[in-house]
Amino acid sequence: MLSKRSSIFLGEPEFLVKCMLKCAEDEYDSETNPSGRINLGTAVNALVEDLIEDRLKKSDVFTHKREWQHYFGLNGTPDLLHAAASFLTKRVTRGEVTMSPGNIRLVNGVSGGLEALSWILADTGEVILVPVPTYARFFADMNERMKTEVVGIHLEDGFVLTPGLLERSIQEQLALGKRVKGFLFCNPNNPLGDIYSLELAKALMRVCAKHGIHFISDEIYALSIFNADKGSPFKSVLTIPENELPDPERTHFMWGLSKDFGLAGFRMGFIHSYSKDLLQCLDGSCIYTCVPTHQQHMAATLLGDDLWLDNKFFPENIRRLSEAHSHTVNTLGEIGIKAFRAKAGLFVWLDFRKYLKEATREFEMDLFQRLFNDHNVYIVPGSEFGCTEFGWFRIIFSVTPKKLEVALDRIKRALLNL
Amino acid sequence: MLSKRSSIFLGEPEFLVKCMLKCAEDEYDSETNPSGRINLGTAVNALVEDLIEDRLKKSDVFTHKREWQHYFGLNGTPDLLHAAASFLTKRVTRGEVTMSPGNIRLVNGVSGGLEALSWILADTGEVILVPVPTYARFFADMNERMKTEVVGIHLEDGFVLTPGLLERSIQEQLALGKRVKGFLFCNPNNPLGDIYSLELAKALMRVCAKHGIHFISDEIYALSIFNADKGSPFKSVLTIPENELPDPERTHFMWGLSKDFGLAGFRMGFIHSYSKDLLQCLDGSCIYTCVPTHQQHMAATLLGDDLWLDNKFFPENIRRLSEAHSHTVNTLGEIGIKAFRAKAGLFVWLDFRKYLKEATREFEMDLFQRLFNDHNVYIVPGSEFGCTEFGWFRIIFSVTPKKLEVALDRIKRALLNL
Repeated sequence: MLSKRSSIFLGEPEFLVKCMLKCAEDEYDSETNPSGRINLGTAVNALVEDLIEDRLKKSDVFTHKREWQHYFGLNGTPDLLHAAASFLTKRVTRGEVTMSPGNIRLVNGVSGGLEALSWILADTGEVILVPVPTYARFFADMNERMKTEVVGIHLEDGFVLTPGLLERSIQEQLALGKRVKGFLFCNPNNPLGDIYSLELAKALMRVCAKHGIHFISDEIYALSIFNADKGSPFKSVLTIPENELPDPERTHFMWGLSKDFGLAGFRMGFIHSYSKDLLQCLDGSCIYTCVPTHQQHMAATLLGDDLWLDNKFFPENIRRLSEAHSHTVNTLGEIGIKAFRAKAGLFVWLDFRKYLKEATREFEMDLFQRLFNDHNVYIVPGSEFGCTEFGWFRIIFSVTPKKLEVALDRIKRALLNL
Repeated sequence: MLSKRSSIFLGEPEFLVKCMLKCAEDEYDSETNPSGRINLGTAVNALVEDLIEDRLKKSDVFTHKREWQHYFGLNGTPDLLHAAASFLTKRVTRGEVTMSPGNIRLVNGVSGGLEALSWILADTGEVILVPVPTYARFFADMNERMKTEVVGIHLEDGFVLTPGLLERSIQEQLALGKRVKGFLFCNPNNPLGDIYSLELAKALMRVCAKHGIHFISDEIYALSIFNADKGSPFKSVLTIPENELPDPERTHFMWGLSKDFGLAGFRMGFIHSYSKDLLQCLDGSCIYTCVPTHQQHMAATLLGDDLWLDNKFFPENIRRLSEAHSHTVNTLGEIGIKAFRAKAGLFVWLDFRKYLKEATREFEMDLFQRLFNDHNVYIVPGSEFGCTEFGWFRIIFSVTPKKLEVALDRIKRALLNL
């Protein structure tokens, strides 16, 4: 009765969405529902709710102008794009390269932006490569409606991404007769929490440039770095000047408010590109990816408040992330669970193999189910991120401290069969 | 370098968008830019800016809750869907049928909603029929990214829509080997300003039901009715109870805030459907069509303020629309321009043929260009709405009275070669 293409939504919802919805049905609350389910699966930053609340309640955030009533700034108001350019320049490139508002567009979330990019860069059935384990919704966002084929590059030997691996994956696709149109680089990486060097990024870009493949750098966790090595800080691809990019026309950057500000409810993502054609396509389709004007003003106010960002928000956010990360790693370390070196993000990637009878998908999902159903705690099994080394789980630690405490206690009890 | 499918955006922008952007570059202002361009082409309601401004500045509109920070109500928050259901029940069905929030979904504008519906209802190249003259963006919204084919049904004999004409158009498509998946019914009609009877709607529905075609009722102007005949008020398809619809699973309704509230900047559209599958597809794709949470609260507050809506907003809006409509028709009537009987909407459909050397597209576009370039006033030529009876123009009259006065004066001077 409906279209064939929409049948993708008639089955079970995608795993992450399904679990999130199930958690919401019986949500833990320390006072009203202490036995409710705790969601350590959805990448939400609840550690800074108080800071955001205080800031949003100031009188400059919610205002109204008559022109905001009407069609205005569908791809970003001038004020917001200007604020975003200054913000990215100061905080993401750390002043190394000056971003121009003319190269930035607003979309209704990075998911919506990924969908838009997949449509603009690839035709139906053409391929975008993504290293796995990976944020599962990369596959959903670029494929569900736009039918771009997302193919995983399976990381090997301790989840290491190399240019050679990318080259080999491209060759494999070519051998299958596929057209590869894009490579998605998620840095800082979700779910690993790893930070990739600018040298690696450039080497991967050169492989892409050689094959005429678009390089999409998703840096949505760029400002949630709590544990970088002193000698190798996070470096955004935006720090590479346009004329030094191997293929500036095919290098695109994404960032949004959902993670670094914990403001998923704002539904705002930004795309930066030097490709005039790509920007023109985003302008052409902005009626489908637009964000309301008042909410754009709210975001512009936050992005432009340097005093608050410098003295309050970012230092405190990083301090709390670091604390929650350490607490999680230490607590689970006590029972022999090893963590992948997380340097950034809202999560840690943990090796639960010690607690699996065998390192198979069946036993991994069995543990997931046991935790979810019997112990009311939701953490994402690695296989849902495409990981074929079974027994890894991603834990979101950026929930309120009390909730984290209870959840980790439940996990320990489950594993120790207490 | 980009995908083939995105090349649609690499040419000139779509006509309505292009003209709107050009107007914004040199916008008329009675004080700061009195010779600037006046836009009577974009369907914006600026007559109630004062009422909206007063209401939005009240303290209940902009508030914050911590849960609004996060993923929440991507397809409509419970509060907003509840407010929308009550609003539609009271104001669109006038209490005849009770709407349920469970059958309503929020999307980021009716344009985004039309795109979503076209994807859900039809596959690439399948057909949705639309009577023409019609709002030009119906063609854009359903085709640009989703590649559903939108085919016009050309209205004849004074722009009359009949079930026979629909049947004939379906047969023509079938004869061409096409699959017809939908029929878009725009009531009140844009650009005609006409209101269709419930009897006609039902007759058209029966034709659709016979062929298994989805009936999409776009009623975005449902509450901008200023001139209905006493005996035949506007009746929404929502006033037909589910069990009396010829094909309830294939009957869908759309409405939004852009026109009846003049709040295009809110980017909010609503879809009502009895089809569980369609609702499930909208839920599945809501990450791409979502609206920020705070803005949803703002909308819920407005939709739920019955005192303000009953005593202030709607009576005053209708009074002003009626006045602006009469003023437009009378002023242009003085120089012999006849108006199509407008009963609703923000516009009037006018016959300029008297001022064309010949009733051809060439002369129609020549007049449009003259008005646009030499007299700095933008009105949409009928051919851009698919009208093949050349010489008709649509004028938006819901601009501020001073602006309307100046624009009509410019049009008169242009036509009289003053």
